Amino acid sequence: MTKILESVPNYSVGKDEEVIEKIVGPFKGHEDVKLLDYSADPDHNRLVVTNVGSPEGLFEATLETVGIAVDLIDMTEHTGEHPRMGAVDVIPFTPVRNVTMDEAVELAKRLANAAAEEYDLPIYLYEEAATRPERKNLATIRKGEFEGFPEKIKDQDWKPDFGPDKVHPIAGVTAIGARKPLVAFNVNLNTDDPSVAKQIAREVRGSSGGLHFCKAMGVDLEEEGLVQVSMNMTDYTRTSLQQAFELIRSESGRFGVTIAESEIVGLVPADALLDAAEHYLQLEDFSSDQVIENRLLEDL
Amino acid sequence: MTKILESVPNYSVGKDEEVIEKIVGPFKGHEDVKLLDYSADPDHNRLVVTNVGSPEGLFEATLETVGIAVDLIDMTEHTGEHPRMGAVDVIPFTPVRNVTMDEAVELAKRLANAAAEEYDLPIYLYEEAATRPERKNLATIRKGEFEGFPEKIKDQDWKPDFGPDKVHPIAGVTAIGARKPLVAFNVNLNTDDPSVAKQIAREVRGSSGGLHFCKAMGVDLEEEGLVQVSMNMTDYTRTSLQQAFELIRSESGRFGVTIAESEIVGLVPADALLDAAEHYLQLEDFSSDQVIENRLLEDL
Repeated sequence: MTKILESVPNYSVGKDEEVIEKIVGPFKGHEDVKLLDYSADPDHNRLVVTNVGSPEGLFEATLETVGIAVDLIDMTEHTGEHPRMGAVDVIPFTPVRNVTMDEAVELAKRLANAAAEEYDLPIYLYEEAATRPERKNLATIRKGEFEGFPEKIKDQDWKPDFGPDKVHPIAGVTAIGARKPLVAFNVNLNTDDPSVAKQIAREVRGSSGGLHFCKAMGVDLEEEGLVQVSMNMTDYTRTSLQQAFELIRSESGRFGVTIAESEIVGLVPADALLDAAEHYLQLEDFSSDQVIENRLLEDL
Repeated sequence: MTKILESVPNYSVGKDEEVIEKIVGPFKGHEDVKLLDYSADPDHNRLVVTNVGSPEGLFEATLETVGIAVDLIDMTEHTGEHPRMGAVDVIPFTPVRNVTMDEAVELAKRLANAAAEEYDLPIYLYEEAATRPERKNLATIRKGEFEGFPEKIKDQDWKPDFGPDKVHPIAGVTAIGARKPLVAFNVNLNTDDPSVAKQIAREVRGSSGGLHFCKAMGVDLEEEGLVQVSMNMTDYTRTSLQQAFELIRSESGRFGVTIAESEIVGLVPADALLDAAEHYLQLEDFSSDQVIENRLLEDL
């Protein structure tokens, strides 16, 4: 049974097509890696690459791209809307098949070690790979961004997990970690009042007392005349999509508002949706072995 | 992109372990076939085998099993609860990935031709492979069963599609066909009154005016103190599981009865359940390309 992980590295380049193509090259070229998607946002000045592959394939190809990014991206000249702290900003690994979270953490550490050694890059481990509680959250690590890091890194609390104790002059610093699959799930509401979406987001998200593994914010979709509860489901195995959906339906009712539609942005593990089908169809004793496609994947 | 079909051949043996193991042997042994399940029911005196594989793999392995069944099963001594007409009673092929229904029909015809030639077996094509409308329905072909076929086969209307115009003396006749994936979907109701399940089954099934691609019957689950609407969904792409489920919920309400649970028996294509998730979560613009597992299957 082949071990398969997903990896979504983010690079601080969003406009230079030549650099972008050079960075995705090692993913395209490695036989044990499948490049699923890459998109560069010029406003964010950021490249997001989505791969699946074996631990070894992802290790080799990603390490190569770190070298390319360190060579070709100059952070001293980088501007963009998205917060960032390095040429390779962040590399998350997610277990997909026959891989435990421990193995994903192990891969993150192995890559962090190799990248720090080869490219003299300070590296922080985050999320499940974090070595201290305050490094779990990527936003906390990234605070201060590239410009603030020469100062931040002097603090003993912010000594990197791998690599030198000073910022790479043109490539900055990098975070590498392991996390559960994240599902971007948005629910649009039949109202043009953004305060409704904001209030409902507050009820739904874990941080303010709602669903534990749900991050949510209210967004105004002005062009559509709708508002949106925009969510990141950070562990769909414990907070399900249907829990979020039904809670939003209930909270919306309080405002006399209905759900217009929902959307999943990017990739989703089949189980997140199969679980919703099981819930609504009241399926008992259902096993994922009954899904033909899962049996085919056993051979991968 | 590998072509993959499912095949569920049925053999008239349910007790003799030695014969059963000999029949599944070619499926276990072929590298392009994956044996997913086989179960022998002594009361039915019948063996149901579920395989997935390439067209060529399924052709070769299935043809070999026809030879084994013709050699080892004597229909003149066969009794069982399930209607049957031959040692190899029926072989359906179902497209799973990168295979059209036309290709499944083509495979059914190729196997029918080869099996008829090699084993002197009369063969009828059924469902999507049928050569006449009245041969679409397997039950119509099978009517009269093994014992009645020597007479039935003399009728010009029942001349076999392949092979001799007379029944194989010990192996009978065989049906080979192609069909959409069939989903066995049962919904249990919180009542012990079987007439409620029977009435709802009548409302739900296509033949009496309900959902077109749904066969349904009412069943008494005496031991559980429940009744069941037992369904075969014969084309889930046109009559969905959630349509059947919601119609049963509505009809049950008329009797003051609620749904206790549902079950899927055997295998189900992922799409049948993903479609239910899309429905209930009101997902817009969802593409099956967003499901990680589907991207992995592209490489098979």
